[in-house]
Amino acid sequence: MTDTPITVAVDAMSGDHGHTVAVESALSFLRDYQDVKLILVGDEAALRSALGRSIPPQIEIQPASEVVAMDELPSRALRTKKDSSMRVAINLVKDGRAQACVSAGNTGALMGIAKFVLKTLPGIDRPAMLSPMPTLKGHTHMLDLGANAVCTAEQLFQFAVMGSVLVSAVNGLSKPSVGLLNIGSEEIKGVESIRQAASLIQQADLNYAGFIEGDEIFTGAVDVVVCDGFAGNVALKTSEGVAKLVRQFMKEEFTRNMFTKLSAIAARPVLQAFADRIDPRRYNGASFLGLRGVVIKSHGGADVLAFANAIRVARLEVQKAVPMRISTLLASTLGESATADPMQETGRWMAAGGES
Amino acid sequence: MTDTPITVAVDAMSGDHGHTVAVESALSFLRDYQDVKLILVGDEAALRSALGRSIPPQIEIQPASEVVAMDELPSRALRTKKDSSMRVAINLVKDGRAQACVSAGNTGALMGIAKFVLKTLPGIDRPAMLSPMPTLKGHTHMLDLGANAVCTAEQLFQFAVMGSVLVSAVNGLSKPSVGLLNIGSEEIKGVESIRQAASLIQQADLNYAGFIEGDEIFTGAVDVVVCDGFAGNVALKTSEGVAKLVRQFMKEEFTRNMFTKLSAIAARPVLQAFADRIDPRRYNGASFLGLRGVVIKSHGGADVLAFANAIRVARLEVQKAVPMRISTLLASTLGESATADPMQETGRWMAAGGES
Repeated sequence: MTDTPITVAVDAMSGDHGHTVAVESALSFLRDYQDVKLILVGDEAALRSALGRSIPPQIEIQPASEVVAMDELPSRALRTKKDSSMRVAINLVKDGRAQACVSAGNTGALMGIAKFVLKTLPGIDRPAMLSPMPTLKGHTHMLDLGANAVCTAEQLFQFAVMGSVLVSAVNGLSKPSVGLLNIGSEEIKGVESIRQAASLIQQADLNYAGFIEGDEIFTGAVDVVVCDGFAGNVALKTSEGVAKLVRQFMKEEFTRNMFTKLSAIAARPVLQAFADRIDPRRYNGASFLGLRGVVIKSHGGADVLAFANAIRVARLEVQKAVPMRISTLLASTLGESATADPMQETGRWMAAGGES
Repeated sequence: MTDTPITVAVDAMSGDHGHTVAVESALSFLRDYQDVKLILVGDEAALRSALGRSIPPQIEIQPASEVVAMDELPSRALRTKKDSSMRVAINLVKDGRAQACVSAGNTGALMGIAKFVLKTLPGIDRPAMLSPMPTLKGHTHMLDLGANAVCTAEQLFQFAVMGSVLVSAVNGLSKPSVGLLNIGSEEIKGVESIRQAASLIQQADLNYAGFIEGDEIFTGAVDVVVCDGFAGNVALKTSEGVAKLVRQFMKEEFTRNMFTKLSAIAARPVLQAFADRIDPRRYNGASFLGLRGVVIKSHGGADVLAFANAIRVARLEVQKAVPMRISTLLASTLGESATADPMQETGRWMAAGGES
């Protein structure tokens, strides 16, 4: 891996808005970050046309002839779409031409292809999906958000390690607190795998803060929330649903009659500040952790602000060497004789087939 | 069971505010509903003192010397607190002196004692906890909310039956639509028990609407949301957490400076209307379904408005004979030769020990 510049492969064809949003997001991102090279992957003609005449020097185009559909079965995408923008973008990471991939495509396909092509880090059974969530105090990070519906205690423990590393690397916290999502504080208290995970995390060199319940995700009680992908996905989607409900109720109340419409005008700056604060676009960019490379999933319906934020997340994770740190902490935590360089295999790929 | 009047046993000592709120709630409830008799269970002296001199004729006091603590182990409460207000209130239902019990106490203890004393209806493995949730279109009903962390397909099916009956009886919908809470719309799609439950519900005489995701709880996509207690509790608590976060963010934005404070004054009626609409007190009163009697769990921190609403829920479920209807639909759905009167056993209890 070279130190400069960071190169991010952007799957520019997937997502609800395809290359239009991807190209604009790349240009928008580069206005803020000059230290990053972006490889836009997809239909060359379409991309060139969207980029216009003066293509910034930090942008490169990598042709790919296919697109993974949003509703395509992940297994089918993995088997048949060898020249899809998603697959080619991930290949660029495997080949060492990029250190990260960003895609707004089909979540299951992205996870399946990334896992198949990049492989997991030593000591990691399955990658997990992590996203920041707003809290009363700032934000927390939750994983897994849906990649693994059912998890063993060992997997939950690995998630705790991965989440700790991410938050520690990205936010500079030395010992992020880790909570396990559970239910009730009485005897009816969750499932066996969670209790076992608690004891694994307690034994490890992590800052374990105990069980938390769904409402405590948002109080800022812990820096990392660990759960299986089913519970995580339910919590994530539920919070999105409530946020939408609240917005709709507010809109209805403020447009009820002439008087309420007037008060909406008076309150507009405040309502805008409030809306900005819970704007999900500010949190766009879920990290697939546990892979030999950085893979960031943008929301399928992301607009330019949101997609550009996902690229920003990718840059940050490369800069902070998140995959390497996960491997290191996991090795020290498990007390195993770890591979000195967890990216070694990627290094080998680079030597074998890397083009840069 | 007699037709008039409906009698509700109120555990007047449990909950964060004990008998103060319970007594006031009873009095408040009786101002709206004269057709109900309330038996307040607890410390007689304390209750009489709180009631004052003129006790309404619809109120009766049933002494109980103990209280189940909010953090007491349910198994311990069940074993040792034989004269607790909670236990005595449930006994009144078993003995036929009341048709319903309302308690703001320890959820696990209430579930454990209710199940032990009242028993489940024929065909029901375990009771489930149901609560209404606000949606864009009105409200939906979700179960289980935490009584059963892990569920079999058969249990999820029973929840679908119980939820359908509740909504049909209470809202007058002839065929409420039932959705199964799941994750993703791709291959990474939940767990085996949910897929099996889907086929059981499809085969039965229910209005099955398919899988829904967490955000769809709040769109009003379905009338009944079925899930295991772990996912349900996570969704419920998460939605409470987001609602609190939103309220806090709004408060912060509206109190930021002089100008925002002025606009808050201008917008006050609208903000109040909005706050009323998401007021959780309006939804207080979770139903324990699947028991031979109506048991309603009030939030531990309920105030008078909220607690009185829980009593209202109890009255409605007795009036609509919810337990009987669950048993009838379950019997017809399973095609078994059902007990003609599922309350038969309660009837026997009444004959044996009922005092009214």
